[in-house]
Amino acid sequence: MDSIILIGYIASFFCSITFVPQAIKTLKSRQTDDIALNMLLFSFIGNSCWLIHAISLGITPLALSASMILTFNTPILIMKLSHMYKKRFTQIELQVKA
Amino acid sequence: MDSIILIGYIASFFCSITFVPQAIKTLKSRQTDDIALNMLLFSFIGNSCWLIHAISLGITPLALSASMILTFNTPILIMKLSHMYKKRFTQIELQVKA
Repeated sequence: MDSIILIGYIASFFCSITFVPQAIKTLKSRQTDDIALNMLLFSFIGNSCWLIHAISLGITPLALSASMILTFNTPILIMKLSHMYKKRFTQIELQVKA
Repeated sequence: MDSIILIGYIASFFCSITFVPQAIKTLKSRQTDDIALNMLLFSFIGNSCWLIHAISLGITPLALSASMILTFNTPILIMKLSHMYKKRFTQIELQVKA
């Protein structure tokens, strides 16, 4: 196999599994304070668009890579949003009590 | 422009700026505890490979996207590694003192 094509496959593999360690860490620790919401949001929007683009044009590797990223990015995004919602709710509750 | 191609450009744009909010948050707060080292490492390896692949084959949008991601991913990776090193050093120091 051409070495440049092989490098492309390596790139695709590593980008596909980017959010796996973050999903594992976040599901274990249940801490999302240091993670930027917009990083998760941008990645979610970007990869949803890649998925539509790839399925429409029949680009299987890109479709696979985007679905992998979405699979592991989505639970972190949900947890981050739920933590932010809880924090905001507690703040409002404290303000009402004060 | 074909809507599918437009969706591809939107995808490329959002994926390019994925690490921008994380870099800003991390440089401001200087906290990296909740970020998984391997997420940063996998993204670094993957995008370095995409950059080599894209430059070799002359794929400009992919090269631009990979360089953007590397530009904002690398400072977070350096900060995470430096925090891990400091933590390890403090632990060893405490063990020596104990």
